[in-house]
Amino acid sequence: MKRKSINEMTREELAFEYSELLAEYEQVKAERLSLDMSRGKPCREQLDLSDGILTVLKTGEDCHNSFGTDMRNYGMPIGVPAARKLFAELCGVEFDNVFLGGNASLELMYDAVARAELFGVAPGSTPWCKLDKVKFLCPAPGYDRHFRICETFGIEMINIEIREDGPDMDTVEKLVSSDESIKGIWCVPKHSNPTGTIYSDETVRRFAALKPAAKDFRIFWDNAYMVHDLYEGVPDILNIFELTQGTENEDMVYMFTSTSKITYAGSGISAFITSDRNMKHALSYIGTQIISYDKLNQFRHAIFFEDADGIRAHMKKHADILRPRFEAVLTAFEKELAGRDIATWTKPLGGYFISLDMLSGSAKRVYELCLDAGMKLTEAGATYPYGKDPKDANLRIAPSYPPLPELRMAAQVLCLCVKLAAVEKALSERGFFKSINTISLGNI
Amino acid sequence: MKRKSINEMTREELAFEYSELLAEYEQVKAERLSLDMSRGKPCREQLDLSDGILTVLKTGEDCHNSFGTDMRNYGMPIGVPAARKLFAELCGVEFDNVFLGGNASLELMYDAVARAELFGVAPGSTPWCKLDKVKFLCPAPGYDRHFRICETFGIEMINIEIREDGPDMDTVEKLVSSDESIKGIWCVPKHSNPTGTIYSDETVRRFAALKPAAKDFRIFWDNAYMVHDLYEGVPDILNIFELTQGTENEDMVYMFTSTSKITYAGSGISAFITSDRNMKHALSYIGTQIISYDKLNQFRHAIFFEDADGIRAHMKKHADILRPRFEAVLTAFEKELAGRDIATWTKPLGGYFISLDMLSGSAKRVYELCLDAGMKLTEAGATYPYGKDPKDANLRIAPSYPPLPELRMAAQVLCLCVKLAAVEKALSERGFFKSINTISLGNI
Repeated sequence: MKRKSINEMTREELAFEYSELLAEYEQVKAERLSLDMSRGKPCREQLDLSDGILTVLKTGEDCHNSFGTDMRNYGMPIGVPAARKLFAELCGVEFDNVFLGGNASLELMYDAVARAELFGVAPGSTPWCKLDKVKFLCPAPGYDRHFRICETFGIEMINIEIREDGPDMDTVEKLVSSDESIKGIWCVPKHSNPTGTIYSDETVRRFAALKPAAKDFRIFWDNAYMVHDLYEGVPDILNIFELTQGTENEDMVYMFTSTSKITYAGSGISAFITSDRNMKHALSYIGTQIISYDKLNQFRHAIFFEDADGIRAHMKKHADILRPRFEAVLTAFEKELAGRDIATWTKPLGGYFISLDMLSGSAKRVYELCLDAGMKLTEAGATYPYGKDPKDANLRIAPSYPPLPELRMAAQVLCLCVKLAAVEKALSERGFFKSINTISLGNI
Repeated sequence: MKRKSINEMTREELAFEYSELLAEYEQVKAERLSLDMSRGKPCREQLDLSDGILTVLKTGEDCHNSFGTDMRNYGMPIGVPAARKLFAELCGVEFDNVFLGGNASLELMYDAVARAELFGVAPGSTPWCKLDKVKFLCPAPGYDRHFRICETFGIEMINIEIREDGPDMDTVEKLVSSDESIKGIWCVPKHSNPTGTIYSDETVRRFAALKPAAKDFRIFWDNAYMVHDLYEGVPDILNIFELTQGTENEDMVYMFTSTSKITYAGSGISAFITSDRNMKHALSYIGTQIISYDKLNQFRHAIFFEDADGIRAHMKKHADILRPRFEAVLTAFEKELAGRDIATWTKPLGGYFISLDMLSGSAKRVYELCLDAGMKLTEAGATYPYGKDPKDANLRIAPSYPPLPELRMAAQVLCLCVKLAAVEKALSERGFFKSINTISLGNI
């Protein structure tokens, strides 16, 4: 096993390893693989876990709740009570603070930003589109679709370093309290996408106690992975909603969650959780937009799970499917990359991603090498605002979707490409390619 | 049977009828009825027609299409192909021009206006929110939720008279071609809400040939009742999409439809149909907003109906349920109100509403009299922009929801209130109430 740090290797050792890796890479390319670790998609077995939900409503009679209300018809703009109760219990919030959407919390987030842009976040609050400049803080690496919302609305994004216990709170506090044009921050507080970070109690408390310069500052608290632990005994995060209710920050939190990775990625239900005042304001616009989201699907979820414990029990089955997948990738990383000073990676306790940091300036190269070898990854840079990773070092690895044998193969290919790019870079820095245009390496 | 026009009656005759009607009204009030003709909600029997859709997908295997794509997972932002095909066939448009949404075309319409406000209707087009003034033409009486969208966005609404063959096209043409701030018009071209109007071929052709002063003028063509005929042989409207494709007005039409009144009002699917250019522009934003709408429900619809003929056959069953309801109300109107010069009403061939025009200044009065007698109607004024019926004469009658015996009762109560208000008005005009404060009549 080669455990020698790349920095300790001689030029000759590097050149020898390079030729070996290149030969291996050519062999892999010849196999014309088709692998995909690009998106956090649940795998078939995971989707199968929820198939019971397809038949909980079989007849028109089934579609009536205990008060006799027909879920097939119009009405209930805020959502089916039984499903709102389910989310209230799961999130530790009051029933009245839960609004139910369609199949995508992304839509609820986009719509929340769109409403702020068009109408402001509260009665009398200036619509963001009327302001010269609106900025969001973006803990990064983070979720590309959050960043894309900002980009779409022309919101300036400011990178915030994400650490082991959450975003760099010193910087967050300083910026939020001093710059009135900062109107929001994206947070995935548990099993962050892609770092797997679990915000510490201290971090959540500091969020709840922020003193924003902007009265219309909002925390977009995307609790997408709140029950998505891979192991028993993973700590829960503090309930920011509870921490802020009754304080001057009562209206500061927009919480989002969904069952996209609990039941079906394409046909789950979503929730928007916020203060009474925010809810009233949002509903005054949502009431123009829609009569209600799909109540049958909300009702199906309520019946299928019964209560929050039903969801928690269900998530253990997901964990049993996902754990070996995560471990397969982590084992390969440990075996192939450890001790070489060429990469570091997260060892998540839940969520959907492993975050892989490589040598500066090599993420794009690794991405391209993988692509040429028939493996799709999330695009290099995607985990940073504007798709620009300042160090060009981070890749988001999504191990959930491929079948285990394919995943093991994919992890091998990925490790090969990481090593190849690292050795290539080291050789290049030592002048090895002086007569070779490195760009031509794109065609190896 | 009293068939004497109210205008031919003597003051004594009126006073006598008034006392009779009042006595009857008091009796009705004493019954403490609870009737509702306020919204165009399908009734239980109608919803039951679609219950087969609940079980077309019973297993995970069922959720795969013929190419093996799993509808439970992420993907297909524009919608499930089989369901897009269904709408393409039904609407006589190309597959590529069909986008599928969630359970509500209202949401697609709101979102289309929101995108125009935020980003403009085309690349380089000025966002409407940056303009001093944006106006929409509103054929009225019309659909209150269309008008509410305009009101929410601060769009100025201009009433357009709606005639037997559609909106007053002379006025539409004149205004649209001369005023650049007019950016849109709401149309329900078949079985208009609430007048039941079917746009003539001439009207549709004139719409397709409009010469708008504003390049970013859009026709919001809400084809909500496209297959909702009550009788055999009701003429179809011309296909405005076909008429505009390949012309300079290619991008002028936003077409919307849904299955809210085909399958389930709360759990149907919706479609947005527009030109290639418009579609590309819209998708560039929708792709930020959502990964896809609920594909399982789209897939359920495609399987349940198979093709457009499947929908047409299904709609005949709806007609069989709705026809007697419409006829019950129309029979009551004919029996109680005809020949009195106190009301006119539409005799719709489809859709969900009867439009009732009463004496000027009496719609609110009738609405209140009905409410006091335990019957809910769509609020007076709701069928006009800003909730302001210039003549205070129109009420929207929704006969679909109540069971037939209840509906017959409701029609009786309504007719009673119309007559009471008419006689009251006539007496008032002849000085009968000179010593009585008419406001106190609110308490009868």
